[in-house]
Amino acid sequence: MKTTTTIDKIAGFVDREVTLSGWLYNKRESKKLQFLQIRDGTGIIQAIVSIKDVDEETWSAGQSLTQESSLYITGTVSKHPKRDEYELQVKSGGINIIQVTEDYPITPKDHGTGYLFEHRHLWLRSQKPWALLRIRSEVIQAIRTFFYEDGYLAFDSPMFTPSAVEGTTTLFNVDYFGETAFLTQSGQLYGEAGAMAHRKIVVFGPTFRAEKSKTRRHLTEFWMIEPEVAFFDLEDNFELMERMTMYVIEWVLDKCRKELEILERDTSLLEKIKLPFIRMHYDDAVKELNELRKKAGINEEFEWGGDLGSPDETMLTEAHENPIFLHHFPREIKAFYMAPDPDDERVSLSVDMLAPEGYGEIIGGGQRADDEKYVIEQIKKHDLPQEAFEWFLDLRRYGTNPHGGFGLGLERLVAWLAGVQSIRGCIPFPRTIEKVYP
Amino acid sequence: MKTTTTIDKIAGFVDREVTLSGWLYNKRESKKLQFLQIRDGTGIIQAIVSIKDVDEETWSAGQSLTQESSLYITGTVSKHPKRDEYELQVKSGGINIIQVTEDYPITPKDHGTGYLFEHRHLWLRSQKPWALLRIRSEVIQAIRTFFYEDGYLAFDSPMFTPSAVEGTTTLFNVDYFGETAFLTQSGQLYGEAGAMAHRKIVVFGPTFRAEKSKTRRHLTEFWMIEPEVAFFDLEDNFELMERMTMYVIEWVLDKCRKELEILERDTSLLEKIKLPFIRMHYDDAVKELNELRKKAGINEEFEWGGDLGSPDETMLTEAHENPIFLHHFPREIKAFYMAPDPDDERVSLSVDMLAPEGYGEIIGGGQRADDEKYVIEQIKKHDLPQEAFEWFLDLRRYGTNPHGGFGLGLERLVAWLAGVQSIRGCIPFPRTIEKVYP
Repeated sequence: MKTTTTIDKIAGFVDREVTLSGWLYNKRESKKLQFLQIRDGTGIIQAIVSIKDVDEETWSAGQSLTQESSLYITGTVSKHPKRDEYELQVKSGGINIIQVTEDYPITPKDHGTGYLFEHRHLWLRSQKPWALLRIRSEVIQAIRTFFYEDGYLAFDSPMFTPSAVEGTTTLFNVDYFGETAFLTQSGQLYGEAGAMAHRKIVVFGPTFRAEKSKTRRHLTEFWMIEPEVAFFDLEDNFELMERMTMYVIEWVLDKCRKELEILERDTSLLEKIKLPFIRMHYDDAVKELNELRKKAGINEEFEWGGDLGSPDETMLTEAHENPIFLHHFPREIKAFYMAPDPDDERVSLSVDMLAPEGYGEIIGGGQRADDEKYVIEQIKKHDLPQEAFEWFLDLRRYGTNPHGGFGLGLERLVAWLAGVQSIRGCIPFPRTIEKVYP
Repeated sequence: MKTTTTIDKIAGFVDREVTLSGWLYNKRESKKLQFLQIRDGTGIIQAIVSIKDVDEETWSAGQSLTQESSLYITGTVSKHPKRDEYELQVKSGGINIIQVTEDYPITPKDHGTGYLFEHRHLWLRSQKPWALLRIRSEVIQAIRTFFYEDGYLAFDSPMFTPSAVEGTTTLFNVDYFGETAFLTQSGQLYGEAGAMAHRKIVVFGPTFRAEKSKTRRHLTEFWMIEPEVAFFDLEDNFELMERMTMYVIEWVLDKCRKELEILERDTSLLEKIKLPFIRMHYDDAVKELNELRKKAGINEEFEWGGDLGSPDETMLTEAHENPIFLHHFPREIKAFYMAPDPDDERVSLSVDMLAPEGYGEIIGGGQRADDEKYVIEQIKKHDLPQEAFEWFLDLRRYGTNPHGGFGLGLERLVAWLAGVQSIRGCIPFPRTIEKVYP
């Protein structure tokens, strides 16, 4: 009987004959030996074809293989005497070609990033994108598991919404049977309704921003994780963010060693992270930023009341090994639903978590305004249409309570953990202002 | 020190004093006793206020409570002598009201479905919607766990796409920076690219259909689970669907007993389901349908080549206890990417899984056409723009192989397992042709 398996399970088949299915990733050959790098989606293995062991047909089948040719390959598994590596000694008749691929567009030589993203559907097969999306998948599972184990209900907020969450300039319009609907920018508002029903919920889905920025930190379509909890304050938020972040870091360090190595990630920087994270009041951040600016020879002062730009976040986070909770932002620069600080009317009960190494904001959250009148005032101040938010106001009319939560950008988290520069590679098919194909 | 907890953990606090936070769900009162039904999102508990045990202030606080008032409540936990139920004996000073709610729109009396969906953001708090969305959450976790444990990579396909999967009439158009993009109808095509890179992937996200049907089986926005696997045929598909379905059924029966009881689900019908599921060739389904029609006094014959309507699926599934794999549909009624049967050119290597009790189709899948020429022919036949599918054709040009997978509609699955008539309550905020608010 033929034993078929996959490369991730190969260690269980030493000295046995198995059949793999996959693609030729690369090859080297001499007059007497062919070294075929076979990938099957779960990993890569070297298959060796020796002219003295196989018939002519098998030898020439091996010769005919081009990059990304698909095949079934049969041979005996052996283990490298020293390293944890396995090889396949191919036997006669052991190469069954499905398709000899011609002119595969991505060769082992260097291509530009633009070219590679145009061929994203194929580039996914290359080692680095492959490793990066495996890390994304593990991060997703880690987050799902964390919240499930902690008693959170998975609660999907709608994609089609009648209203904007943070202003209308970055909304995508959809023709909804002749009317206009908007694509959701955040599931939080609906998450609040969920929290009033289920106490602890987490929204996990795509969100959309028609942002024209072309930076490596922006996508028009990205995934957000948004826990929302009733009877929950700013302090609870700190605790939840810390616990979740540590959980995901440990998960990734545990399960993604091979992938982090492929990406040449310096994992010691992740291993150094310890609880508690740094807590920095906005007032203190302003002071520290101005000191850092001075040191860096920047004359312009960062003024109280301003929002931190990417360069500010980079400067601040490069100065610390641990993530930073930047809290109590001025009310003016935060969303309309953020709770005001009862002890300091200038600021809100808000917090951003900035990742180290210059990665900057990956989480934004806080306690929500729970007073109906205050929220109405803010809706007016932000020029939002109140009628679209009547249901949201109902949450303040009927059994209001202190509640809160946060929004975590999945791709930004993955970029940080994997140590890559751009978030574009952290999602299978990135969408930007210029790119909706493939 | 004050001990705060939640109702789901109350069994660990018998004879101890605890503080809960939540809302008044309902109450009964006499001259000497108040019975307060308190909900906190995790469950409901009865709190008893006795006039002889509390001071006047606490008694009148209890009196002032209206439906959905929010409060903190402190008392001693006791267990019902016979049943697995707990009560809270409220102490003096034990009622701290956050908000006395006025005129809560959903009273214990009956409201119409239309009215309830208009107040969906509040209706979520009622017992049945609460139970149903808890089941949804468990089903999500079951599916995620199943695929993760089985080695599938979570692979998100894009929401913005340049092309239609199953014809353009049911596509939503988005204004994408002045150009038109479409909202995805299915993640499968992108999932195929993922399968060629990672072998086993699963797409799990929202999908969109601008369907004008108002049936209880249609939403404009719904969630799909779409595994896709390289080197995978129709037989593998049967096996995967069976195994996943049984896993989810067992998970729900294990974790959702209380919720199924609230929904008055006859769980014996789920417990009866056994492997293997029924396999029925399309040819045989035509015969059986015509016999069933005859029995039901319907004169019109179901003709070979037609697609099964909802009434047909209902009739067929009500005649069997187990789910039915209806396979080898005529090529003409299946999507352009479905593989033709090499042994019977009339039909495709396709399969729908129909759920029992009249629920009908909840999964559709099959083996994919892997021959470039055949796919081009089909794209033309279906009047689709080939240039939008060039990347998809690349998957057939570079290392093609037999591959397949399926699409499972989450809300339909939840409706069946929970035993509810309409899928609208199986998602927090259903979207239909008429409804995009709240």
